[in-house]
Amino acid sequence: MIIIGEKINTSIKAVRPAVEKMDTEAIQQLAKKQAEAGAHYIDVNCGTFTSKEPELMEWLVKTVQDATDLPLCIDSPNPEALEAGLKSYSGKKPLINSVTAEKQRFESIIPLVTEYNTSIIGLCMDDSGMPEDADQRVKIADWLINNMTKRGIDISDIFIDPMVRPVSTGTHYGLVALETIRRVMEEFPGVHTTCGLSNVSFGLPARKLINQTFLITAIAAGLDSAILDPLDRKIMSFVYSAELLINKDEFCMNYLAAYREGRLEA
Amino acid sequence: MIIIGEKINTSIKAVRPAVEKMDTEAIQQLAKKQAEAGAHYIDVNCGTFTSKEPELMEWLVKTVQDATDLPLCIDSPNPEALEAGLKSYSGKKPLINSVTAEKQRFESIIPLVTEYNTSIIGLCMDDSGMPEDADQRVKIADWLINNMTKRGIDISDIFIDPMVRPVSTGTHYGLVALETIRRVMEEFPGVHTTCGLSNVSFGLPARKLINQTFLITAIAAGLDSAILDPLDRKIMSFVYSAELLINKDEFCMNYLAAYREGRLEA
Repeated sequence: MIIIGEKINTSIKAVRPAVEKMDTEAIQQLAKKQAEAGAHYIDVNCGTFTSKEPELMEWLVKTVQDATDLPLCIDSPNPEALEAGLKSYSGKKPLINSVTAEKQRFESIIPLVTEYNTSIIGLCMDDSGMPEDADQRVKIADWLINNMTKRGIDISDIFIDPMVRPVSTGTHYGLVALETIRRVMEEFPGVHTTCGLSNVSFGLPARKLINQTFLITAIAAGLDSAILDPLDRKIMSFVYSAELLINKDEFCMNYLAAYREGRLEA
Repeated sequence: MIIIGEKINTSIKAVRPAVEKMDTEAIQQLAKKQAEAGAHYIDVNCGTFTSKEPELMEWLVKTVQDATDLPLCIDSPNPEALEAGLKSYSGKKPLINSVTAEKQRFESIIPLVTEYNTSIIGLCMDDSGMPEDADQRVKIADWLINNMTKRGIDISDIFIDPMVRPVSTGTHYGLVALETIRRVMEEFPGVHTTCGLSNVSFGLPARKLINQTFLITAIAAGLDSAILDPLDRKIMSFVYSAELLINKDEFCMNYLAAYREGRLEA
């Protein structure tokens, strides 16, 4: 399971002022803690600062790279902010979060992927808007994978996000997400799937319960990456137990190591 | 989700002396609490008292039926104990736990099912022992369902138990159980699937984590009944959130009701 640590995001209340004041110590702490907790990528997002976004992204990338060797997930819909981040980046292949199948967005982001040799998250969404069912999502995933590999991007660098919608707005959306993950993993060998966990529970109480349940069912459906808070010990515990259950943990080694290191919260 | 409350079982340390002393109050409390917590059947098992089992089963059935209107799940491999329980039973159609495809056991249990008009749990196991993979399990389920319906048992009265084996003894056993549940529910419309949750985690630490994860993935695979502790608020919370996620909770009504009633533990 490829964990993308989501904590460095200015839409999080406590993080916004730290980025605004360019508080190196606070941001580096968040990066280090996520790395220690098992993240494989550190996501950086300063999208709430629209006009200053490129400048702050450059600072974030440098600041986080000074604190950890992990690759970053550079997170913005704005190509200028992405490029500012990529220009100041050096190290293991980063991940861009994200592109869609919207023609204009696709054409503005893909050149960055190829020029800077990055991996890329592709959201199942196109110019006709948010897809309703799994068929439409798989079709968009197909288009994204086809058009990205045609431009020379390796399928193993592509992470498809099914675009999870809240079950409160349609109780079928949980199954739609799971079905999309299952089919994308089956039909496009070598590709990754990823997603955030919180959209699914929007508008409902006791959201953590739904987010945990969704993560577990998504892992069972084949999800091999997630954008989540690695400092949430409970959610990380479920990553270990879910992989154990679907035979992705030989001899239960990862689960037992996590237990010995005190990482499991039962 | 059909919840079979597992608390009245003399293999549970605190329960054994209550049954031994025929402590009506203690047993009835356990029955009532499980009913209030959302059980649909109350399991009664006094299998640790081999020689006195029929006599104690008769007492258990009467005692529990005096405390609740719920149907019972009469739990023993011993036909004499089952018959002693069934003879003293009156009320909603009970469930027998359990039969297997072992010829002798099958022939001794099925006449009780038809004579007393009960539902029945069929374990995926035959005279060749514990099956290794999902194919063998589905084949045994097929045999059980065929031979039971031939004797006049309605398919809706049959609960197939996949016989979950510990992932500590083979990391493929989680997937084997999930695959069996999925295929039995798809290939035999109208049948139920059920199972206990604790076998899967045998021999590993932080077992609750694995049991919760297994329940969630099994519900997503189609499981529509489980033998569990309804007084465990966390496991019951995951029943609600899992059914919500797989579109088995119209308008999120059950989940929201459980939340309002303070039943959810996030």
